[in-house]
Amino acid sequence: MLLIEKVLLLRASEIFWQTPEQELVELAGILEEIYLEPGVTLFAKGDPGTCMYFIFKGKIRVHDGGYALAVLEENDFVGELSILDAESRSASATTAEESILLKLEQEPFYDIMMNNAEVLKGILKTLCRRLRIMDAKSVTSQKASETNPLAL
Amino acid sequence: MLLIEKVLLLRASEIFWQTPEQELVELAGILEEIYLEPGVTLFAKGDPGTCMYFIFKGKIRVHDGGYALAVLEENDFVGELSILDAESRSASATTAEESILLKLEQEPFYDIMMNNAEVLKGILKTLCRRLRIMDAKSVTSQKASETNPLAL
Repeated sequence: MLLIEKVLLLRASEIFWQTPEQELVELAGILEEIYLEPGVTLFAKGDPGTCMYFIFKGKIRVHDGGYALAVLEENDFVGELSILDAESRSASATTAEESILLKLEQEPFYDIMMNNAEVLKGILKTLCRRLRIMDAKSVTSQKASETNPLAL
Repeated sequence: MLLIEKVLLLRASEIFWQTPEQELVELAGILEEIYLEPGVTLFAKGDPGTCMYFIFKGKIRVHDGGYALAVLEENDFVGELSILDAESRSASATTAEESILLKLEQEPFYDIMMNNAEVLKGILKTLCRRLRIMDAKSVTSQKASETNPLAL
């Protein structure tokens, strides 16, 4: 893969869409290319998590035992929370077809993030946006379940 | 208020529970004490958000128009997403009784965070933990609404 392809993949992801090009080039340089057959376990629920993966080609099934949580495709990524908080995996991930992934390890990622306010701010914005979206959903479902608005 | 009281209030909050004492003392030093009567609007939905508040005494009602989202009390905090992403407020906040708050502005907070890996890691962990909890809730409700597990 070309460096520019890696940069474009990072740029297309929600987590790095606000990161300046120069920092993306630096991040792209530390990505490891991985080629996997279908049915390979990327990680299992409960595993320690110290890396994340960007999907260049293929499909990844995210599941909790037999419960499918998501099927991720090109330009998606998986395992992003563990790279940020180093907690164990909250779900399993398995290749659903032949896949090419880019692996980002926690340590070099943290080094870049700690030395670059723009990378950090982009990631904080992304996490906050997700929380805002989830908060808004919970407000919407609260409103929908109420016959009378609650005015405390 | 004593500096030690401010440190303890920060320490009791979800957002700074993992921040080392030395950094808490630094953060405590930039907090502004605010005394408010009941019924005062702290911020309105849609306002630009550049600070957060810790509740030392009193009660804060978080609401979207007439819909009550939460009533926050001593040791709680409010407005934390805006200090991280500088987006507008997603809800309004109003004092429900006489309150003493500590205001933390975005700029000095960012300065401390950017110079201190421990502060940063603690905040990232907190945001990730919240996302994990919300993800788990959505899995639980998905499972509960299914008669047969979905195995993609």
